[in-house]
Amino acid sequence: MNTKPLILVSNDDGITAPGLRTLIEIMNEIGEVVVVAPDSPQSAMGHAITINSTLHCQKIKVTDGPQLEYSCSGTPADCVKLAVNELLDRKPDLCVSGINHGSNSSINVIYSGTMSAAMEAGIQGIPAIGFSLLDFSWNANFKSIKKFIAKITIEALNNGIQKGVVLNINFPKLKEEEIKGIKICRQAKASWIEEFDKRTNPMGREYYWLTGTFVNEDIGQDTDEWALSKGYISVVPTQFDLTAHHNIQELNTWNL
Amino acid sequence: MNTKPLILVSNDDGITAPGLRTLIEIMNEIGEVVVVAPDSPQSAMGHAITINSTLHCQKIKVTDGPQLEYSCSGTPADCVKLAVNELLDRKPDLCVSGINHGSNSSINVIYSGTMSAAMEAGIQGIPAIGFSLLDFSWNANFKSIKKFIAKITIEALNNGIQKGVVLNINFPKLKEEEIKGIKICRQAKASWIEEFDKRTNPMGREYYWLTGTFVNEDIGQDTDEWALSKGYISVVPTQFDLTAHHNIQELNTWNL
Repeated sequence: MNTKPLILVSNDDGITAPGLRTLIEIMNEIGEVVVVAPDSPQSAMGHAITINSTLHCQKIKVTDGPQLEYSCSGTPADCVKLAVNELLDRKPDLCVSGINHGSNSSINVIYSGTMSAAMEAGIQGIPAIGFSLLDFSWNANFKSIKKFIAKITIEALNNGIQKGVVLNINFPKLKEEEIKGIKICRQAKASWIEEFDKRTNPMGREYYWLTGTFVNEDIGQDTDEWALSKGYISVVPTQFDLTAHHNIQELNTWNL
Repeated sequence: MNTKPLILVSNDDGITAPGLRTLIEIMNEIGEVVVVAPDSPQSAMGHAITINSTLHCQKIKVTDGPQLEYSCSGTPADCVKLAVNELLDRKPDLCVSGINHGSNSSINVIYSGTMSAAMEAGIQGIPAIGFSLLDFSWNANFKSIKKFIAKITIEALNNGIQKGVVLNINFPKLKEEEIKGIKICRQAKASWIEEFDKRTNPMGREYYWLTGTFVNEDIGQDTDEWALSKGYISVVPTQFDLTAHHNIQELNTWNL
């Protein structure tokens, strides 16, 4: 009989990403691990799902360890749906996604494939956490945040995560000893100012690259951006009930 | 000098979709219309954006009328970003997305390309509305809901939409005279139970189709699902601040 928690691990950078491999290492110490992750990078996929084409999935082994691993052709949300409904023989006790190579703080949560895997698990009633490090590079240093991830995961398993809530956790790009601690935060009201880099291809046809500048005009000291800028790890409880309940009364005054 | 409101129109079913063409017809009566829509269907794309490949965009004309039209290779969120930051010479007064062929009520809002276009506009500070009809067919009858769309759009322009809020509007599949009215609602706590249809391809390799059953266990009479089932149009104010503010206090009791 197995008494270890069953932990589903996914991400959006793909099954070979160092951030995912680090997360697997950490989770192997805590529970029984099954990995279901995209076979190629799926960054900025938001909560996309595959409904108009087929999905492929195969059992593979990327690194040594006790974990089971599946590589899937779909999006992060597809991976979680496939895991829960087809690949696993019982409901996972926890789903963790990441560690993302790059930030998913403030408005980035909306575009995040990492968080879409966690959100999908949350929708299915599974406690879920997304982990992201503020370092885009493939060789980012994930070692310095390993003990924090273990601590947060164990607390989540011990306390439980409230139904309808998914944790969005971001780590500053700092050495372990430089990290000041962990703060519970709200999502900063920040956004991107896009700039399109317009070019002409060799055949004379115009095309664009999407680029942009991140702008945070939210001066609150209770936001994820504030915490990260001060050297803290940010924990934002997020939800998939998007209703703006505070606006319902006002809309009822419209002449509809 | 132009005193008509500038209305940006997008969708996720693609620029030739009858739902979009109907929305353009309605908006041409209300304002100056610019269409920036995907060149191919982008359903269930969630809030995906294109960051690892290029975007193409060309000025075209699908149907007669005073509107300007651009066909874009990206996702619905890309279309709105491109419109606001590159194609339009002033900020639109309103962005409308749809009319989607199919429901975006309750949890479907999370997967919705239609709503991601509206959400992206909302993030950029533009009042925005997503319209969806509960009929998946290409030849769905959009005529019966035209006058309601005009009414809601004019009310939104007159009253303004609160900052941080985007309207998610769904229409029951009914004749005009059968529609009972318009209800302001919250997002129902409903979800999909997925079933994967596993098949074998001619080369002997297994693959899956994602299918599922929609299950609504939310018995509230203030939800979008309730309103739609009773013959009403549902209006849900949605937000892109995903913070579960009610959970912050509890998380502060964790030993982190």
